[in-house]
This record gives sequence, C-alpha cells and structure tokens, in this order.
Amino acid sequence: MKIAFLGPQASFTQLATTQLFPNEDLFPQANILDCFNAVENGIVDKAVVPLENSIEGTVSMTLDYLYKTPSIKIEAEAVMPIAHHLMIHPDNDIQAIEKIYSHPQALAQSFHFLDSEYKNIQRQDFSSTAAAAKHVSENPERKIAAVANQFAANLYGLKIINRNIQDFEQNHTRFIVISKEKNTYKNDRLEVLGEKSGLLITLPEDHAGGLHQVLSVFAWRKMNLSKIESRTLKTGLGNYFFFINVAGEWHPVLYENAIQELESIHATVDFLGTYKEFLLES
Amino acid sequence: MKIAFLGPQASFTQLATTQLFPNEDLFPQANILDCFNAVENGIVDKAVVPLENSIEGTVSMTLDYLYKTPSIKIEAEAVMPIAHHLMIHPDNDIQAIEKIYSHPQALAQSFHFLDSEYKNIQRQDFSSTAAAAKHVSENPERKIAAVANQFAANLYGLKIINRNIQDFEQNHTRFIVISKEKNTYKNDRLEVLGEKSGLLITLPEDHAGGLHQVLSVFAWRKMNLSKIESRTLKTGLGNYFFFINVAGEWHPVLYENAIQELESIHATVDFLGTYKEFLLES
Repeated sequence: MKIAFLGPQASFTQLATTQLFPNEDLFPQANILDCFNAVENGIVDKAVVPLENSIEGTVSMTLDYLYKTPSIKIEAEAVMPIAHHLMIHPDNDIQAIEKIYSHPQALAQSFHFLDSEYKNIQRQDFSSTAAAAKHVSENPERKIAAVANQFAANLYGLKIINRNIQDFEQNHTRFIVISKEKNTYKNDRLEVLGEKSGLLITLPEDHAGGLHQVLSVFAWRKMNLSKIESRTLKTGLGNYFFFINVAGEWHPVLYENAIQELESIHATVDFLGTYKEFLLES
Repeated sequence: MKIAFLGPQASFTQLATTQLFPNEDLFPQANILDCFNAVENGIVDKAVVPLENSIEGTVSMTLDYLYKTPSIKIEAEAVMPIAHHLMIHPDNDIQAIEKIYSHPQALAQSFHFLDSEYKNIQRQDFSSTAAAAKHVSENPERKIAAVANQFAANLYGLKIINRNIQDFEQNHTRFIVISKEKNTYKNDRLEVLGEKSGLLITLPEDHAGGLHQVLSVFAWRKMNLSKIESRTLKTGLGNYFFFINVAGEWHPVLYENAIQELESIHATVDFLGTYKEFLLES
C-alpha cells in the first residue's frame, strides 16, 4: 500500500506515519495540499497529515482541504507527545556550539531550556526540524546543533546531547489518516484512546447565529463534542464552516437523526467517518 | 510607542503591523512566544501576532499563549486578504528561472498557478516568504525567484513578474493586537468591519460534556458566536479550553450575567476584551 505523508524525511509526521504504517511504502510530500492531491488522484491509498498543534505546516490547511475535497474521509486519528532533543554531529564537541538551528516553533517550544543552558548561543530559523538536523549532519566542520526529534537523530547519525528539552512535558500533536474509503484502518499494536466521529458542517450565507442551532442538535441528544473549530470560508468574510468531533461510539439512529435535523435547518453536513484515536510514541 | 510583531522583516505580520501602527517603532520577533514575552515583560507596549490562517507560525500557539498569560488582553483584530506575487532580481530574466523559493504553505497556496505556468521548475522550501525574497535579492547571479508579498518586493528591490498568483481570491489572514491594557487601540483611517468580544473558557477536569452547558449560556441570551475553537490543555489529554468570539456590541449586564453563569458551572473565564475588527490592505 502507498502512504503519503507531510515531509520532509524525519518530520514528526513521518515519525507518526512509520508507527501507523510500519510495513507500507511511504512517500513524503512538500505540503498538506500535495498529501490531499495524492489521495484525491489515486496516486497513493492514504495519507497522514497533522490535524492539531503541529509545528510542520499551518494545520488550518488540513481543515480547509477536508472541506474542499468531500471525497476524502478520515480513517484514524493519532496523538503523539512532542519531544525535542538537542543534537550535534558525533565528531563535534558540546562545549563548542556556536549556533542552534531548528524550526522557529521548535525553538520557541524549547525556549526555557535554551535560555537557561545556551543563553548566548545564536539561534537560526530553518524550514523544518528535520532540515535543521540534515544541515548539521552535512556540515561536520561547523560548530552547530539542531533541535529535532529522535527519528531525525537516527536518520542523520547525530548525537543527542540533551533530551526532552521542550518546555511542557505533555505537549501533544495530532494526526489524521485520510483516504477515499471509510474506516478501513486497523492496528492491534497501538493503544486505542477512544472512538470519535468527525463532521464538517457548513451554514448557509444568510444564517448568521446558526451555530446555536447546530450545537443544540447535538446537545439535546447528549452527544458529547470533544473538539469544535470554526473556519472562515474562502468565499468571503463572515461565512464559515465547523469541524466537530463527537466522542464515543457510533449510534446509527442518533447520527442519522442529527444529520437530518441539521439539514432541515439548511446546514450542509459532510460526515467524515467514525474512527479510533491511537496513542503513538514520541 | 514600541510595537513587537512576528517577523522576519517583510513578513505578512509586518505588512499588517505597518498599517495598524504606521508611526511607531516596530520590533520583529523570531516567534510568537517572543512577542508575548516582550509584552508580558514590558519591553514593548503592544504586539501584533497572527490569530488565524497565517502561513507564518502555527497560530494555535497564539491561543495557547493567550491562555498561559492571563495578563495579556486583545485590543484589536485585523483581517488582511492574502496576495502572493512571484518576484525575481531586477537584473534577471523571467525566461531563465530555474528554481522558485518560498514558505511551503505559500507554494501550496499558489499551487495551481505554479503548476500551469512553471510546471517543471523546481520549488524549494524556505522558513518564510520574506526570507525567500531576501535570498533572491542576495543572489543576483542565480536564476531564482521567490513567492512573497508586495512589501518584501519593495524592501528587497525585487521585480514582480506575476501578481496575485494565489489560488483563492478571497483568502484572508487574521491578526490581533495584544497588550496588558484593554481597548486603547484606535484607528480612524482603517475601515471597521465590526465589533466583537474574546473569551477564553476553561472547563474543570471532571466536567466532560460541559461544552453544551457553556454554549447554552450564550445561546439563550442570543449572543451570536462568530468564532469558536477548542484547544487541548498541556496538562494531559482530554482537558481543553475554548476561545470564543461573541459578535456585536458590548452589553455589560448580558456579559456579566453570562460570565457569572459560566463560573457557577465551575468554568474559568478569562475575558480578553471587546474590540474592533479592522480591514487591512494586502
């Protein structure tokens, strides 16, 4: 099976993808749009993209492309604790570091550590944590370090000199597995954290204030919303759609009735699937 | 007055900041955290950071830092249409382009144009659109182009060869002005799109399903929510807070009662202010 993921090599998304699809052919993509296009056009079977709190790509793009490509559904969600490590070329010396490279958000997420341990060392933005690690591996003569993940350290043969330098121990990032099928993803090795359903709900242009109505459809049925995010539509200011996660098991009648009720108030509903949430290792 | 903004120079955030604060001293910051720290520590008076749909920094960080620094409030919101242009060094030739540099999301947002007009030209990720423009300006001998904004073209003396190459005409990005004061931002030159209030609402750990209750507090008062976003708390999986925008003018009694009612169901409310939404030029 062919699996696309948001690259580059050794990105956090690849770290997630290798756990979700350990035995499949993986194809890194330059951006989130390319992942969606590869699935849409049948070039790959599935793709793994960040849904929440990633430092690799503005995740709102994932919601926008889910909205724009109704043929693409969600098969699984996976959550991974974020762990940043400081790494150098194995030929280099910890004492000699003159510059630290990483993605600006990874440097921000390691702010307190870097500020106390490497206060006067210059920091340099890179397009990704993986690219920073690659740059360090390719320049052994320079006294530089990278903030990146374990996978990047392994892939590029770097030596980790400080582990878990992120400021918050329990920072997580979320990924989704997308495809044109529904609910075919299975995995017996990963811990299952729960089950949820994903819906995209669009309100008609003339329906300001409709969010109340949309949410009461779920409220009186005691369907528990575990995530809700409103996104402005590209067609103009003020129009929007909502991404909603309903927690718990799938109750066909409840869902069918809720969706009918939403449609009766002129909302458009794209049901993205009912899927499991898996826990990954960092 | 000193104003921090999410840099680098010629970023979209600087383009917004120069319109919001045309006569103040502007200080670019490496990441969103540094903007918050500069305000928190009194190094600057205010800061401008992206709130939604930006390609410069994961905007969920803005919500997370608003949550973590309750002393910081919102003074204004500004919305700007996104316009990407393809630009080269003025000494170079359009026909000779061999490589196009930009932020991966800007390349993705210009996907259809680049794919039809520059199909076989290699694309290279950069940490920001502004850094890509700077790189093109510093390497006149190389046959390279950048996708960046008008401001970057001006600053780095580049020649725009294709204007408005973004795939969607009405793609917008949103920024907020943050400070430790409330509601001091005024601007008579910019068009006002509306008024809104921002609230951060945290639910206690043992209160699963509380989102219903929170939203009904606004629903029965007919307070119109124009944005809602749930964010997972760093303390563990499953706990979250919500960022909510209530549209329209400020009604003190209505707000006071709504906040009291939220606190009675053990929600914690951080009122971020009532502020105007301004329209910027791209």
